Amino acid sequence: MIIGGAEDKLKDKVILTRFVRLAGGADGHIVVVSTASSLGEEATQLYRELFQRMGAGRVSGLRPLTRDEAEEPAGADLVDHATGVFLTGGNQLRLSSVVGGTKLGTALRRANGRGAVVAGTSAGASAVSTHMVAFGASGATPKHRMAHISAGLGLLENIVVDQHFEQRNRLGRLLAVVAQSPSLLGLGLDEDTAAVVHPDDTIEVIGRGAVTIIDGSQVQTDAFQAKGHRPMMVSGAILHSLPSGYRFDLHSRELLPGKVDDGISQAEARIEPAKRQVRRLVKKIAAQGTDSLVVERRTRRGRLEEREASE
Amino acid sequence: MIIGGAEDKLKDKVILTRFVRLAGGADGHIVVVSTASSLGEEATQLYRELFQRMGAGRVSGLRPLTRDEAEEPAGADLVDHATGVFLTGGNQLRLSSVVGGTKLGTALRRANGRGAVVAGTSAGASAVSTHMVAFGASGATPKHRMAHISAGLGLLENIVVDQHFEQRNRLGRLLAVVAQSPSLLGLGLDEDTAAVVHPDDTIEVIGRGAVTIIDGSQVQTDAFQAKGHRPMMVSGAILHSLPSGYRFDLHSRELLPGKVDDGISQAEARIEPAKRQVRRLVKKIAAQGTDSLVVERRTRRGRLEEREASE
Repeated sequence: MIIGGAEDKLKDKVILTRFVRLAGGADGHIVVVSTASSLGEEATQLYRELFQRMGAGRVSGLRPLTRDEAEEPAGADLVDHATGVFLTGGNQLRLSSVVGGTKLGTALRRANGRGAVVAGTSAGASAVSTHMVAFGASGATPKHRMAHISAGLGLLENIVVDQHFEQRNRLGRLLAVVAQSPSLLGLGLDEDTAAVVHPDDTIEVIGRGAVTIIDGSQVQTDAFQAKGHRPMMVSGAILHSLPSGYRFDLHSRELLPGKVDDGISQAEARIEPAKRQVRRLVKKIAAQGTDSLVVERRTRRGRLEEREASE
Repeated sequence: MIIGGAEDKLKDKVILTRFVRLAGGADGHIVVVSTASSLGEEATQLYRELFQRMGAGRVSGLRPLTRDEAEEPAGADLVDHATGVFLTGGNQLRLSSVVGGTKLGTALRRANGRGAVVAGTSAGASAVSTHMVAFGASGATPKHRMAHISAGLGLLENIVVDQHFEQRNRLGRLLAVVAQSPSLLGLGLDEDTAAVVHPDDTIEVIGRGAVTIIDGSQVQTDAFQAKGHRPMMVSGAILHSLPSGYRFDLHSRELLPGKVDDGISQAEARIEPAKRQVRRLVKKIAAQGTDSLVVERRTRRGRLEEREASE
């Protein structure tokens, strides 16, 4: 499960709810790996609280900061007995360089292989694939030397993930990566949006934004004629922009027919009448020009999301 | 000739130089139509000065602000005898609503038909086609109700133009337009970048950025199921990002083989040794930490470009 960052934590929580359910709910054991984050235990605490409130049985934290720590058998053992693993945001290069190729890294691949749900948000999403965007420049037009690739944790093959996709304007670098590596399918995830990768290599989109998929199998490019940081020619890239409910086959690189029931509408239908009333009140007050309640609500949300401002 | 706005006016002037040449140079007569601009005669003055310095024979200004003025035969007559027409930036809706369907509008189509070069920058670029993006929201992800279409001046058929493309993050709205109207080929022009449309309906890219082409002929979409402003599903859009020198066939919707000599390198080669020396000096001073010269130069450029800040 790869999440574009800034997943909703206060309202519908469509994405995190799905994760907790896939991780077994009350019978599950979730391990939060917060190596990518620079906030120390705070990130673990935040998700522990969220997952427990959503009914997760047990939540453990793991935060190796050196390769030695990632080699400790206890961590790998914890992951081996987990039903779900959650990789927090932060810096994907920190995550891949501390964990990649260690006992913990191998345990993560094993967990994914045996069907435990492994979710990553933001940096954690970037790190799941074999090829990872380590860092790069923003902008819609592909340019030479725009993105830097490192080896990720290798849970997913043949894809490359970028996150905060619309919000940080990252189409250009994903096009540049795919043009240079057309064997990789590019997945750009908007914030509060996730791709649930099923065992049959199909994905399902959930959340508020879209997943942009770049298929470079028909691409003509001058990517091999690298010249400074000038625009790169990319012709014939196939682009898919899929909102919640749509499914895509990563193998055949095709949209799947039919639409899964919209997660957002479902979530909205679940809102209890009391909450609806509050919402109506907020709207009413805002309409009268006194939107302090709305502002307060935004600020509260903003504060929580600020904590994971780095990707 | 459709220009993405903010074309260079101080350095290489690749785009404006090409326009003046196509308009016949010293033997030519250029008419500047500044209806779109809110700056009054200033926009005309700016381009008049630029074109004359570049060796244009005669430069006239036309600025109808009402449909009555656009119906005056004198204006149409001026255009009928021009070798080149330049539509300034500003507000494309003002241009199309004042000029579209008037004597002047018909004269512009006639001029284009007989082979005079008609160039538009920014709003002027948007207005040249039969279908025009009047206004819309920015963002990389296509959403319902994101862009509003009006009838443009009708010089080019089967395309829809968007400008300041990378700089104002307009992929989403172009994808939304093309998904709803797959008969139109979407052209997104970066700033200081132009598509030269040849009579055989091929285009050539010149300038510093790229032209993004969106081909919706294979698209699957839920555009017809409009719901609020939520993300729109667009699957199978073919994307081309073409920098300077590349050519594209608007009919077959394919990249053309070969590359035209790079306009920028050519321009750089033309720089006289004296200018090179100044440039080297500027770099040297900047490297020493005293970059006041660079700043001054940027400010001067900024000032000129601010005048056409509205699109």
